[in-house]
Formats: sequence, structure tokens, C-alpha cells
Amino acid sequence: MKALVYEGIETLAFREAPMVAAQPGEHLIRIRASGICGSDMHAYLGHDARRPAPLILGHEAAGVIEDGPQAGRRVTINPLVTCGSCAACAAGRENLCASRQIISMPPREGAFAQFVAMPERNLVTVPEDVPLSKAALAEPLAVSWHAARLALKALHPDMERRALVIGGGAIGLAAALAMRAMGVEDVAIQEPNAARRAFLAYHCGQQAVAEFQGIVPLVVDAVGYAATRAGASAAAAPGGVIAHVGLGEDAGGLDIRRMTLQEITFIGTYTYTAQDFRDTAQAIFDGRLGPLDWPEQRPLSDGAAAFRDLRSGAVAAPKIILDPWA
Amino acid sequence: MKALVYEGIETLAFREAPMVAAQPGEHLIRIRASGICGSDMHAYLGHDARRPAPLILGHEAAGVIEDGPQAGRRVTINPLVTCGSCAACAAGRENLCASRQIISMPPREGAFAQFVAMPERNLVTVPEDVPLSKAALAEPLAVSWHAARLALKALHPDMERRALVIGGGAIGLAAALAMRAMGVEDVAIQEPNAARRAFLAYHCGQQAVAEFQGIVPLVVDAVGYAATRAGASAAAAPGGVIAHVGLGEDAGGLDIRRMTLQEITFIGTYTYTAQDFRDTAQAIFDGRLGPLDWPEQRPLSDGAAAFRDLRSGAVAAPKIILDPWA
Repeated sequence: MKALVYEGIETLAFREAPMVAAQPGEHLIRIRASGICGSDMHAYLGHDARRPAPLILGHEAAGVIEDGPQAGRRVTINPLVTCGSCAACAAGRENLCASRQIISMPPREGAFAQFVAMPERNLVTVPEDVPLSKAALAEPLAVSWHAARLALKALHPDMERRALVIGGGAIGLAAALAMRAMGVEDVAIQEPNAARRAFLAYHCGQQAVAEFQGIVPLVVDAVGYAATRAGASAAAAPGGVIAHVGLGEDAGGLDIRRMTLQEITFIGTYTYTAQDFRDTAQAIFDGRLGPLDWPEQRPLSDGAAAFRDLRSGAVAAPKIILDPWA
Repeated sequence: MKALVYEGIETLAFREAPMVAAQPGEHLIRIRASGICGSDMHAYLGHDARRPAPLILGHEAAGVIEDGPQAGRRVTINPLVTCGSCAACAAGRENLCASRQIISMPPREGAFAQFVAMPERNLVTVPEDVPLSKAALAEPLAVSWHAARLALKALHPDMERRALVIGGGAIGLAAALAMRAMGVEDVAIQEPNAARRAFLAYHCGQQAVAEFQGIVPLVVDAVGYAATRAGASAAAAPGGVIAHVGLGEDAGGLDIRRMTLQEITFIGTYTYTAQDFRDTAQAIFDGRLGPLDWPEQRPLSDGAAAFRDLRSGAVAAPKIILDPWA
């Protein structure tokens, strides 16, 4: 099969790779749409020790079951493979499973390829009227759906439902969409890139600002650097909540003194539960997350250029989706 | 009246001070017991810009109403004076009131004095069989009660009720007692001072360790330094909760990468709600927080020596309570 292989720092090759083999209980999926995530970029830059080259990246994918009795079933893929039996899995917190795996991280190759193999329980059926390129957004949208759900759950019921999202990439935009779908009507997105800000405002109907002023009960840090955490801990209202999604920098930034004196809660969030993934897919299918017409689509064969363009800040769209068969 | 006046860095004088005047709606209280808090020590060392000399410190007090129709009523004092009408107060989160005041911080003098003046709503009646020296513990115990309550509320219901408290001072010990009272049976206290550790083990029946090994769902950082936060974020189990009480250092220590990948929640906590204060007082009166026989009692006139002894690490007891009339 063809795949976009990460071969070393800032080096990607679209080339022949060994065909994946489905294990018992797994399906072979023909990938039709596979989004580029910030964590793929992180790996591409050589910043993720968990993703050593050579490796096929990509974990935001949708496609069609290739063989067996379910051949032809259109599915979106929950890329998080968990044991299903530990205490975390039993509690419905599969993302905390100690033996969790995600495709694009050894031992599992990723979805910037023509095929992947996935367990049956990781697949969600996509209705005929929903394009697979839209269904591939289930993964990044589920990350933000999960963060928004945890943040709203932690928020005191007497506080206003008003939010700031730091970072206008796909995770930030998705956090704004998820919070709106959960009834938070006033959501601002802080994004330093002017082109992306314009895209968020004019194409996605979002309230995008270069520098947020004031305080809000809910803050989502969708970037995860010390500077964005400093912004988050300054912008959270007394008694408010920060949900933190990114893995930009490992430490620093939070104003702990203020968070203590003003009782601010910080929630580390990672991926999603299986239920969050299903709920997000359903919200996509129902239209509750909007038209989702903001990704840019390119052939997987042009993947190396897509990474270069993202790296140089030349892409206004918050997401590029690659098609391995285009 | 006599008071222990903070006159400058590491300088306290037991001397005559202007008699306090009760404002309308306030009672004059004859103080019979007034505990030394870590924040008093912080101020004494010149580390708290909110408490400039000259100032009467002290905010953990119990006494007797001095005059008026309620003269003779034995009370313990909630030292947090709030507006009672803002959104935070209306939500029962008086500790987040933007105009909150605490005695021992300008404009309110503290309780290392023979008298203080307090609003009626800050007073909780102490039953005749409860010594005022024990009732004065309501304030520090309420700080920990509040932190423990928020931590348990944030903890996922499927997680084990097992906790680590970092720091074996009064706030740490009180956090252990509060969590036990709330049904957490397995609580370890990490405390580096061997004498205090022995005191916690032999006098207070606590499980005290020099260095905690392993992970637990609940961590209370009752110290608030970068090093203790590093310990807290290493010891919290995946999906667990850290409640943070202290104001030792303003920033640093948290392993944000681990907290994100393992979905650890960090809750800044400050003082207590009015309901927490009343609940804690009731728990003291009922005996649910144990015999509470661990404070050391000294006359307020020896207050300067008490601060020196605490500073040098010569006090094994987690609390010294001063009597202005001894």
C-alpha cells in the first residue's frame, strides 16, 4: 500500500509501505480521509519521543471496511485502542487505560496510509449522507468535546456559561463548537495568527480576538505552552475552570498563587472516552457542530508539502485532511 | 488592650494597643484562644505584602461576647468578612467575594489581642462542654475541610478513596482528619521533620511517612511550594485530583505534561465557605475530627518566643494556641 512515511526530522516520503495485517477481531479499513493533527506536526519536528522515525503518522481517519461480511460499511475511527477490562476502562474512562495505544504511535502504524487495521469496537458507522472527510473530524472534535464536557462538569452551577478558548487551530475551534453545542453561547477564541483569525471569523462565524481582555468562568487552553497557560490562569474568573488540552511545553506558566487565592481549577485532559467519541460523531451527523466545512482537502501524495505549509504558517484553515486515494 | 504586635521582620511585641471598636452589627469578642497559622509565620518573616507592619496578626480565634444582650455567649470566629450580596456570596462561595476581608489583614486587625470586633454572622456558638482552645481550631480545620470537600467532589466516583497529604502541619493533619471524617480511610501524611512525624504517628494516630512511594487518587498539597507541587503531580493517580492549599511559592513545580496525559485535576483552594466553617465547627463539637488534643498552649505574652520556636523547627506539635489572658 502507499503511505506517507515519517523518515526523520521534517522528512516525509509518500512511498510504498508494507500492507497492514488485521489481527483477529480487527477490520481492515480503506482510509478515505485522514486529518493532520498538531501532534503529527510535533512528531514531524522531532519533538515527540513517543513517535520515533520511521513511522506512519496520522490518527484522525475515516474510511470503508475493506473485507469480510461488513465490507462496504462506512466508518469513522476511534484511534485509541484500550484493554477494555481494567478499572479505568470499566469506569468508562478508556483514555486512562494503562495499556492504551493510539494508531501512529508504536506498536501501531498510523492512518496516513491507504489502509489501517482496527478493532471492531473502535468503529462508528457513518450515515450515507455524511462525507467521510467530515466524519474524519470525529477524532479532533472528540478531544475538544471531552475537554468541554469535563470543564462544564467542574464549573459551579451558579457561574455564567461564558468561555475563552486559547488557540484557534482545530482543537480550539472544536472546543468553541463543542461548548456552543453544550449551551455556552458566549465563546471567544484568542488566536495570534491574523489570517487564521480572519478565517475563524468570516468562514466559521467565530468571535476571534488577537488578545483577550477580561476574565471568564471557563477557559480552554488548546495550545499547551507556558505562555498560553499564563494567559489561561490570568483570564479565569475566581472560582473558574481551565481545561488544558495541548502538550506544547511540559511545565510552567500557571500562576499558582492566583489559582489558589481565587480557587481556579485546572483539568488536564487527554483524548476522550469511547462514549465521548460516539457522542461527538453523533453531534457531527446531527449538525450540532455546524457545517464543518472548514478543513482544506489535499491528496496524501502531497502530504509533505502540507506539513511544510502548516509549519510555515501559510495555512489559514484550522485543518488539512489528506486523501490516500486521490 | 494588650496585643502581640508585628512591628517588622521577625519582630513581635506584646504591648498595649488601641482598644478595638465594634461597628454597627458587630460584637466585641474577648479572645480566649488564638492559634498561630503558617500565614502568620509568612507575614512575620516579611513575605506577605498583604500584611505590612505594624499589624496585629492572628485569625484563628475563639472567645466570649463581651457586651450587649448576648454577653457571655461562647463563640468561635469565622475571620472571613464578606459582603453577603455579590454573586459569589449568593452562590454560597463567600471565600470568592471580591471584597472579602480577613482579620489580621488591613483594614482589620487580628486576633493576637485581648479583643476583636466581628459581625454577628461570623460567629458560631460553642457548646459549654467544648473548650474554647479546641473551638479556635475551627478556622484551620475549615480550610482543610473545604479542600477535602472540593477534592472529593471532583474525584470520579469509580476511583478508590485513598489519599496522600503533603505536609504534616496543622493544615495537613486537618486535611487527613477531614478526609477520614468524609469516609476516606487510607490517608498517608508526608512530612520531612522527624519530630513532627513522630508526633503525628504517636500522638495523633496518623500514618506519617518521610517520603511517599506510589500513586493515589487524592493528593492534598498542604504546603504549596514548587517542590511539594512536583511531588503532588508525581503522586496523583491517572484521573486523580490534587487539592492545593498553601501559598509557599507563587509558581512552578507541576508536571503539566503528566497532568495532561493522565488527566489530573488541580484545584486551587482558599479558606472556606460559611457553610464549610459551620460544618467544621459542628464536626469538632461532635468529635468527628478526633480528640483534637494536639495543639500546644502558651500565653500570648510569650508569643514572640512561640514564633521563634516555630521558625527554628523546635515545635513538634502542629499548632500553638495563644491565650491573651493567661
